[in-house]
Amino acid sequence: MTSPACVVGVDLGGTKLLAGVVDARLNVHHRTQRTIAGLGQAALLDAVADAVTEVGDLSGIEPSAAGFGIPALIDRRTGTAAACVHLPLEGVAFGDLMAERLDLPCVVDNDANMAALAEHRFGAARGVAHAIVLTIGTGIGSGLILNGALYRGAIGAGGELGHMVVDADGPLCQGACPNRGCLEAVASGSALVREARREASSLPASALGQVLSAGREVSGPMVTELAHDGDVAAQRAIARIGSQLGAGLSSIANIFNPELIVIGGGVIAAGELLLTPAREELERRALAPNAELVRVVPAQFGAEAGMLGAATLAREELG
Amino acid sequence: MTSPACVVGVDLGGTKLLAGVVDARLNVHHRTQRTIAGLGQAALLDAVADAVTEVGDLSGIEPSAAGFGIPALIDRRTGTAAACVHLPLEGVAFGDLMAERLDLPCVVDNDANMAALAEHRFGAARGVAHAIVLTIGTGIGSGLILNGALYRGAIGAGGELGHMVVDADGPLCQGACPNRGCLEAVASGSALVREARREASSLPASALGQVLSAGREVSGPMVTELAHDGDVAAQRAIARIGSQLGAGLSSIANIFNPELIVIGGGVIAAGELLLTPAREELERRALAPNAELVRVVPAQFGAEAGMLGAATLAREELG
Repeated sequence: MTSPACVVGVDLGGTKLLAGVVDARLNVHHRTQRTIAGLGQAALLDAVADAVTEVGDLSGIEPSAAGFGIPALIDRRTGTAAACVHLPLEGVAFGDLMAERLDLPCVVDNDANMAALAEHRFGAARGVAHAIVLTIGTGIGSGLILNGALYRGAIGAGGELGHMVVDADGPLCQGACPNRGCLEAVASGSALVREARREASSLPASALGQVLSAGREVSGPMVTELAHDGDVAAQRAIARIGSQLGAGLSSIANIFNPELIVIGGGVIAAGELLLTPAREELERRALAPNAELVRVVPAQFGAEAGMLGAATLAREELG
Repeated sequence: MTSPACVVGVDLGGTKLLAGVVDARLNVHHRTQRTIAGLGQAALLDAVADAVTEVGDLSGIEPSAAGFGIPALIDRRTGTAAACVHLPLEGVAFGDLMAERLDLPCVVDNDANMAALAEHRFGAARGVAHAIVLTIGTGIGSGLILNGALYRGAIGAGGELGHMVVDADGPLCQGACPNRGCLEAVASGSALVREARREASSLPASALGQVLSAGREVSGPMVTELAHDGDVAAQRAIARIGSQLGAGLSSIANIFNPELIVIGGGVIAAGELLLTPAREELERRALAPNAELVRVVPAQFGAEAGMLGAATLAREELG
């Protein structure tokens, strides 16, 4: 069955890809997941093409286009990926390449932009003209909805709020970012693990302290779980991240004067343990008119946000 | 003589106002300046109205509209001034009030937005789709040209890059800003004076050190003059401000991916003494695609930027 209303959305993360056939109401008719960590470029491109073909075949729907969210800046002058840390796609004209291989109209954008598009068109930021969406996982991605549209900058490399300086002499950032003390360096999942190790050392009797002294690996989800269970050390680590996030949110409020800031990504599993200190710091720091207007809320979409947004972009630009 | 091509532009600063009759090519036919420091609200409004009337009368041109740049956030829902620190205009519907008094179509906006508009339509950022204009004086104002238009945010309180956090535990900001370590707190003219005092203390034999030990007041223009004359302490103070400015510029590059950042205001009198360390810090910190694209240049318009921009806004919106 050909369905012009159906498109494929694909979200490429550092470790896995998620692909699905998505209709105009954002129902997912078939989805697939592949592990792509460690693949070379050719094998990665094969895996992506294969996943798109598979979801089309198994859903029995012939999609009219495909959209891809990838963890890279996309240079819109050439369509090539830049600053792609976790996947071997640097310099690859990903959209053109996929369009040729799949014989299907294809579009590609930054993964965090795709998550923001999903939240704006169908999720927590629906109907809001000025909304900032932060996706906080290992790193921090962001998408800017300004005057109702995604803002990408001169060549498509804008909207990198994760790499806005918050603490000029702070810790070094990771990957392709040469910065110190940018939001990603102080308020991402990686920063949470660093803070949790510090709290665990100073509170060795805490549940988190026992994890550390037993030589077990400290991870973001584990810290979040311990915090929800009431462990003080874990709660302090999350509160510290929340407070540093809040300093960044005050910048966002003063820069964009948005109605809404949406927080998604794995770290939002901490919920109010993260958001309450973040809001408090935002209110302490932002100019009054900006602080009074903005609301900070969790994302509506979880792990599928990027895939749903990629499908939305494909429908809007090509569908 | 009635000239539909002529409008009045007025720039209100903390200490003086500047008004002029401006034609469509940005020629100023008559200008006037008034000291307004310390005036109460009624006297201030009288002085403004009087200046507009005077420039119209003395130029022999009947303007078709007037535009005002004021040092405040303008709530565009109501047209009232908010966060107005230096003048008693808080809560005043300035544009409506002037329109009634002068019987002339009037428009009002933030003074830094007006400077940005002048630079974009006629100055250093002419023809550039994504340009950020910083006005660095006692404080730091900014205007954002995104996709060719001024960005104002949900209620008009956006574009406050001076109040973006750069050093979360840094010095307290001034006026209506409750923040710590925002760009204005570390890279404005006020911050320059603070740094200059510190350098003067550590280098008492320097020209700047002698100024301090003689009990003379340290001012931004004096530090700039001493630096141009080769005084090491003054040069260090400016370089320190430049470097902190550069950390902020790296955020701006990563957030907006602009082609251009324009630096105006009194502090730009330091020229390359400020801009060279700022550019170096930007290049050290920003993501490669953003650092490679952006240029950092001095503003074309000096003290008249706000007046020229206010006239431009009046022409574009009302002329």
